[in-house]
Formats: sequence, C-alpha cells, structure tokens
Amino acid sequence: MIRFILLNFLLLSFTSICFSQDYYGNSRKQWLQKAEQYKPELIITEKKPLHIVNVSPDEYAFQKWKVTNIHPIDTLYNMPFRLKKEVIIDFGEHMTGNFCFSVRTTGLAADGPLRFKLTFGEVPSEVAVPFDPYPGNLSRAWLQDEIVSIMYVPETVTLHRRLAFRYVKIELLASSPYYDFNIYDIKCLARTSAKNIPEELPSSVDPMIRKIERVSLNTLKECMQTVYEDGPKRDQRLWIGDLYLEALGNNYSFKQHDLTKRCLYLLAGLSDKNGYLLATVIENPVPRAQDKQFLYEYALLYNASLKDYLEATKDYETAEDLWPVAKKQIDIVRTNVKSNGLMDFEKVNKNWWIFFDWKEDLYKEVPLQGVSIFALKESYKLAQLLGKEKEVADLPALIKKMTKAAHKNYYDKKSGLFIGIGNKQISYASQIWMILSEVATKTEGEKALSALHTTQNVCHPGTPYMYHYYIQSLINCGMNAEAKKALIDYWGGMIKKGADTFWEAYDPNNDFISPYYFYPMNSYCHAWSCTPVYFIRKYPEIFQK
Amino acid sequence: MIRFILLNFLLLSFTSICFSQDYYGNSRKQWLQKAEQYKPELIITEKKPLHIVNVSPDEYAFQKWKVTNIHPIDTLYNMPFRLKKEVIIDFGEHMTGNFCFSVRTTGLAADGPLRFKLTFGEVPSEVAVPFDPYPGNLSRAWLQDEIVSIMYVPETVTLHRRLAFRYVKIELLASSPYYDFNIYDIKCLARTSAKNIPEELPSSVDPMIRKIERVSLNTLKECMQTVYEDGPKRDQRLWIGDLYLEALGNNYSFKQHDLTKRCLYLLAGLSDKNGYLLATVIENPVPRAQDKQFLYEYALLYNASLKDYLEATKDYETAEDLWPVAKKQIDIVRTNVKSNGLMDFEKVNKNWWIFFDWKEDLYKEVPLQGVSIFALKESYKLAQLLGKEKEVADLPALIKKMTKAAHKNYYDKKSGLFIGIGNKQISYASQIWMILSEVATKTEGEKALSALHTTQNVCHPGTPYMYHYYIQSLINCGMNAEAKKALIDYWGGMIKKGADTFWEAYDPNNDFISPYYFYPMNSYCHAWSCTPVYFIRKYPEIFQK
Repeated sequence: MIRFILLNFLLLSFTSICFSQDYYGNSRKQWLQKAEQYKPELIITEKKPLHIVNVSPDEYAFQKWKVTNIHPIDTLYNMPFRLKKEVIIDFGEHMTGNFCFSVRTTGLAADGPLRFKLTFGEVPSEVAVPFDPYPGNLSRAWLQDEIVSIMYVPETVTLHRRLAFRYVKIELLASSPYYDFNIYDIKCLARTSAKNIPEELPSSVDPMIRKIERVSLNTLKECMQTVYEDGPKRDQRLWIGDLYLEALGNNYSFKQHDLTKRCLYLLAGLSDKNGYLLATVIENPVPRAQDKQFLYEYALLYNASLKDYLEATKDYETAEDLWPVAKKQIDIVRTNVKSNGLMDFEKVNKNWWIFFDWKEDLYKEVPLQGVSIFALKESYKLAQLLGKEKEVADLPALIKKMTKAAHKNYYDKKSGLFIGIGNKQISYASQIWMILSEVATKTEGEKALSALHTTQNVCHPGTPYMYHYYIQSLINCGMNAEAKKALIDYWGGMIKKGADTFWEAYDPNNDFISPYYFYPMNSYCHAWSCTPVYFIRKYPEIFQK
Repeated sequence: MIRFILLNFLLLSFTSICFSQDYYGNSRKQWLQKAEQYKPELIITEKKPLHIVNVSPDEYAFQKWKVTNIHPIDTLYNMPFRLKKEVIIDFGEHMTGNFCFSVRTTGLAADGPLRFKLTFGEVPSEVAVPFDPYPGNLSRAWLQDEIVSIMYVPETVTLHRRLAFRYVKIELLASSPYYDFNIYDIKCLARTSAKNIPEELPSSVDPMIRKIERVSLNTLKECMQTVYEDGPKRDQRLWIGDLYLEALGNNYSFKQHDLTKRCLYLLAGLSDKNGYLLATVIENPVPRAQDKQFLYEYALLYNASLKDYLEATKDYETAEDLWPVAKKQIDIVRTNVKSNGLMDFEKVNKNWWIFFDWKEDLYKEVPLQGVSIFALKESYKLAQLLGKEKEVADLPALIKKMTKAAHKNYYDKKSGLFIGIGNKQISYASQIWMILSEVATKTEGEKALSALHTTQNVCHPGTPYMYHYYIQSLINCGMNAEAKKALIDYWGGMIKKGADTFWEAYDPNNDFISPYYFYPMNSYCHAWSCTPVYFIRKYPEIFQK
C-alpha cells in the first residue's frame, strides 16, 4: 500500500527546519543496533514441484482459471523440451524463496544458448493472464516474470530474485534446432524465519476452522522473513498495520517475539526526526523508512503493538526503551482533536494518509474518531503497565471527552447506527471502530452490527484487514456465533476458491477487485489476512467448539 | 557456423561399432590434461562508456543506422531516468566481458522494483532493429538482449552473461511512480587472454594499412579468451578453421603460442573415437566437441596448424605428441581419393560438411581437390620437420598424382581458369585453392586471378575467411600490388563503414548479408577476419611500403 501526503510532508519539513535536532537524539542509533541484533535467521527448506498442470478457462473457478493435474513432475524431467516449449508446474503449496532448475542435453552437445521466460504465480491467474500491456499503477516489476538466458548447457540456474509462488510457467523463448534438452531438478529454496510451528487443532474442531487455521498460519509463516513483511510477493516490507496483526497472530502461534521486537525497534529507529513514525520500512538494501509515508492510524497502532508485545513477553526493558516513541505518537491525537472532543477530520485528512481499508468510497470521519480513542486507551494501558501514568495524565479525561463527543455526534438512535457528520454513509468501518473504541456500549454495538445486515447502501469491508476488526468487534459485542460464521464465510470463502494463503483483498462477490488496477498485482499471501489463527486460538470457546 | 551430416554420422557410428576401442587410447586423457594446463589467465580491464549517442536512420550509413554523439556519459549519471526511459550509450570500442551498472534514488526511498531491458550491439543496427519476431535459424538467445529486475535500490548489477559489444541500449520497462533514480557508474569488466600487444606500425606506413592492422589486432584480441573463439558474441568457441587463421595472426603479433598449443590439444583430446577431428569444441561448462560436426577441410587444416605451430615455436615435444592425430587425418584424403587422382567429390559431399565459405551457391569440387593437396603437402612438411617421412611415405606420389589429375581435369587453357567437371561455375574459391595447392603454376595462377576480373558470373568470396585465402594466393602468385589493393579495399571497406573489429561476413555491396537469415545475428568481431595483421607483418615489403 502506497500513498503520499505532500502537504503533510511540506508541513513536517517546515517543522524540521524550525527544530532541526533529532527528537530521539542518541536513542535512534541504539534502537537500530537492537533491531539488527534481533534479526532472525532464515530457515531454508528445499521444496519440489509435484505436478505438471493445465490451467484452463472455467467460468466457475476463482478468477475463471481452473487448475488440473495432468502429469507427475517426473514426466517433465524425462521430456525433450525443445518442441514442447511450454509447461506449467505446481508446487502444491505457497512458497517464498529462490527458484532453481537445471537443464541438460538429451545427447548431442549444446551448440547454442537457451532463453526462457519464467512466470511465477501465487494464484493460477498469474500464470495465465498476460501482464502486458500493463494497466496497473504500481511498478510492473513486482509482477513475477523473469527472462533467463542460459549460455551453456548443462547448467543449473538459481534465480537471484526471491519469489513468492505456488505455480510456475516455463516458456522456452529460444533454443538451437541442433540439440534437444531436458529441464530437471526443479526446486525452490524456500525461506521463512518461522520455526515453532504449532500443533494442529484437535480433530474435533470444525474442519473448515481447522483449514482456516492452517492457511492463516501458513500466510503468517510466509510473511515472517527478516521482518514481518506485508506480502512476500509485494511489497515485501514492514508496515505498522500489518505488524500489529502479524504480532497478534504470532502471539498465539509461533511465539517468535524477537521478530516483533526487531520490527518495533526498526520502526522507532527510522521514525521521522520530529518523532513521528513512518508507516513503513523498506529493509533492503539498507533499512530505510519510506519518506513521507505518514499514515495516521498506523502510527497510533504502534502503541497498541508495543502494549501487546509487553503483555505477551513481560519484556519491560524493551517497552520502557520504546516508551518515548509511543508517548510521542499520542501527540498526533492531541494536536488534531478539536475542543469539542471530535477529531478534526478535515485537518487530519489534509496532513495524513487515513487508510482503514482498500475501499475508495469509504468515508472515514467516524473510524478516525474511533481509532484515535482506541489508540489512546491502548497507550494508557501501556503507561499503566510501565507505571508511567503520570506522564500521560491527561489521557483519561481526553478519552472520556472524545468518547462522549463521538456518541453524541455520531450515534443515530433511530437506526442504531453510527454515522458521520460530513457524510451520511453507513459503513462497517464506522460501526467497527465505535465498538473497538468502546464508544458504543455492548448492546449498541450488537444492534449496530445487526442493523448493517438490514440496511441498504452499506459500505462493506474491502479487505481481510478491515474484516479482522469486524470479527473483533463481533466478539467484543458477544456475538460469538456471528463471529464464527463470519470468519468461516469470509476466510473459508477464500479456501473454497483455492487459497493456500490468504489474500490482500477479498470480496466474496468479485474475484477481480484490485487496489492497483490489475488483479495479478494483488498480493495473494498477505500478512494482514493471517488473524484467524489469532481468533481461533485466543477464543477456543468461540471457534473450537 | 553449424551444419550436420547425418549420413556421415551414421557411417562413422557404424565404424565405431565395428572398432569400438578408442583410436588414441590413453593419449586422449593426457592431451586433455595438457589442454587444461595451458589454459590462459584472463586479463580483466575496467572499461567505461564515453557518450550518450543517437542512433538514427541514415540511407548512407552502414546498415542504414548512423551514430551521433549527443552528450558525454556524465550527463546520464546526473539525469533522473524515470521519465527519460531510454538511452543508448557508446563505449567507443568493442569489448568482451561483463556489463555492470548502478542505480540510486534521486532522494526518496525506492518503494518498488525496477525492470530494464539491456540490448548490446557490436554494431549500431543491433541496438536499433527489433529482434522479434525473429526470422533467423540459430538460437534467438545469441542476440544480446537481457531483461533485468532490480528489486532493491540502490543496487549495483553485474550481468552474469558475458557480452560482446560497443553499444548498449538501456530501456526502462518498469518503475514506481513514487521515486526517481539515476543510472551511474556503468562499466564493462572486459576480458581477453591477449597481453603482449605489439607496437604500432611505423608512421610511414599507409594510414589505412595502419588502421587495418590495429582493427585486425583488436579482432584477434577479442577472440582470444580461454580458447581461440570464432566470435566473442557468437559462437564463442573453437573451430579449427578459425584456429588456423588466428594462430597465423598470433604468430605475427601477440605470439602467445600456449593458447595455440591448448587449442591443438583440446581438439585432439576431443576427437572422434575413430581418430577423426571434430570441427569445433564447446568449452563451457565442460569442454566437449560438437557431435557429428565433421568438416572436411577443417580436419585437414589441423595439420597445417600443427606444422605452423612447430615452425613458430620449435616445440617438437608437442608436435610429436600430436603427430598421430595429424597422421590419422591424412586418411580422410586417402580414403576419398579416386584411382584417377581426383577426390571423390560426391562421396565426400555425402559424408562430410565441405565448407570453404558462407556462399550458398559455391560449387566445391575444385576447392576440395585443392585443399586436399594443400593439406597433404603441409602434412608432409610436418613429417619432414619431425623426421617421420617414412610413416607417410606414400604422400609424395599421392600429391603428384592428385596435382596432375587436377591440372588435367580442371584447367581450362582457353580461359586460363580452373573449372570443375560437375558444374562449370567459375569461382574465386577454385582459382584460390588451385594456387595454394600449387596445381597452378605461378603464371597460371596470375592469369586465373586476373581473368576473374574480366569474366562474367563469377562466384565471389562471401566472407573474410575466403578472402584470406584470396590474399594469400595473390601473394603466392607475386601479385603484390593487387594483394595490397585487395586488402585495403576489402578490410578497409569495413573500416570505412565503422568497423572496430572485423566481421564474420562482408560483402562490399550488401550490408545485410547473413548466413543466418538475420543480419544482427552475424558476428561483427570474428576471428577468421583477423589475418590482415598476419599479412601486414609477415610481408612488410608488400604492405608496409
């Protein structure tokens, strides 16, 4: 996810001219050293493809491409390939790593080079749909097709580029008419830093819940590299929003808390000179925050992540070390709340990227208020855990004031829904964040969430990211059966459509949605979609019964 | 150059079933060890591009593409490239090696990968003409275009593929709209095993001869890698015909005789089990002869090469070691000569590839007779140098008989030209090989070569390979002025068209000839075109006055 707020950049640049010293002074260097210190080792596993497959048009398949096994992979290894020219292979599972293959002649010496196009797909459409002419807005180079020249045969080729895929289309672009060859020993040196794979759920658990849990776990595993990546295909980097949800998943599965610690330190170390967090860090070639990427609620969710980390680990040393960062983020609310207790939506919208969901028409006034209150509460809990309440003594009153203002201004008693002032849109997001912030009572929340089903023109969630908060709000309102059903319907819907890992964007009614104007550009293994593992394992009474 | 004679292969396969032991027994292994022992070290030199150039259509330029310098290279290094998208750069000279370049952002962190297409050209047309749809017959992968994904920026990329080029077209295929970048520090790690660069000719020498000598030397230098390659762009390997001429050039320039020794051993070690030489050795990944590539006159020219090597080095040990190979090749003539002293053209043509030139319509009966006699003479001289005349005691009589038969059957007294029996074509090749074999007296030779200029429908040489033998035959006939003029006209013609290195195929009247049905596939730095350095330095009284 990518956007820039130029105005905000200019504003902060101006601020940084006025106060040119670094807000965190020497701490920054130590934070980055600690981030480096906790960089996990990657575990490399050799994975082999299983089948030659056929990918054919099918009206009823996900994105209209159906995969059929046609031969075991050994058939390929014994097949003269010169006239065959093209094959699609299936590794049977999603993997992230380096693709290797070998070529050898069938007898006669190779008298000229080979040229291949290799196309890697997380989902079948990526190896079936032409990438060009490319209609998308992100770099076309994220699409995983590589051209490889092999000057000498026999040869073993390992692609330098790390890829995320299950399917590989191998196309022969050039060969000599004077010899033939086999492709053989295809493998992927798959990488992850996840090692402590938790046991499967008891067989008594609903089979779909069991499947969802495994796919969630796999999604998280694939995204756990040397940071929590958002997606191993794209963008391959740390975003605070993804970190927040990945850490939740990790706390209830792999429990590799050092990775969370590394990410928290990395984000702190690469924060803006004024002390504000940038939403994303690009790890390679040298860790660097993406300039200008000020994302309102992500900065605030850092505090919730740090609090969760402390609760999961009791690592007070780290939490105290990073407390100044959390404390500083609170200013984002303080400086943007109006005297009436409502967030200044216009001002925030001008200076920050307010995200919440990939949903272009979502009106964000109410969710903004909600997430602000939620973050203040999480921050205050963190202060309490650290015995630092005095440093943020204004928060209880501020939270109260904001909560009251929200309820007064946004709650529509007649419909039982929360609606903004500037736009009367009824959205899941508004109800969800009013519940998570506890502006809504449990009863009001239940009523609001139920009302969504009987209201017309509702703005639905566009991604599993928003859907996570939806499930949490159902649980918070005690709507356990609904939570279980929603989780099964939504994530199970992806599984029914063939998901090995959960997707960045999912609309049960539209297989082709894309925030990037080209659905093969979507990430089909996306961190923020991994949270069923958290729900299922945190709330066994809801999901495991 | 590539062709197969399947019949021959079957014949020899049959022979090898009858006599399944290896003709050379244990010697083969030792020969290959010696080949390895004399593998030269490559000298790596860092070369930098000079200019950004414009390559534009021009009716009067070579292959209709004109190159104009437009900026010094530093201009590129300071240029934001995202919107520029394409540039052609000129290194100012031909080089063989690994291309490197770096990218860095102009400020903002890179949030997505880059994708480039890099196209390398020995001549301007290669960076101007589309390669696809590819009409040629050799592997399209010889064409030097590579697609490169750069996942992280900044990055320094070194292409693994060794390339041969002067010009590079850099095209940006994909980038992120959210940052810009510079390309900088472009270089080539150029490789050759040639080190003893001879001094330039005295300034008193004809300027065009001086230029031709330097370009010849450069051509040879570029082809001198860990074997004598035919062309560093394509086929990048050792052919006996090229070796023969490269060694002539080397004897009068670099004098790196160990490279010749290595190649002679490599060919011997990888000869057919029946003792016959295969025409070409592919060096990588493991040295291997190209199966079935039995090229008649190349096998015989090995003997001339070994004799030349002995004369140049006095290395009797090597010549004695390899004498069994030379001796065996003589059988190729013995077993294909008819009782009347003429070569059995039909039989040879059926079982061997008879090459002589890239000239589809060339009738090869007379040249076949000529090269056979020439090779027997060279072989007998080798035997004499080694004191082994007794082992080939039949040769003097055979040579005499074949010479007499050739003169009787092919010499047309009326026209003063040598003409075959099966086809009345008048070719340069026929006259040349009757002269080099000394079937023609000096006077007859002079007359024949002169008559070519006044005869209609003559089959002209198609390559500098055949032109080499033409110059030699002019010299042998004492036609020194004509030799000098022909050399200046032909090789100087390439220089006038912009050659930095001499080409595989050259027709002064047709810039677009190609043995491979696509002129960008031609090698524009080709070993067999390097012999002006031999002529100019061996015959200073002809060329340096």
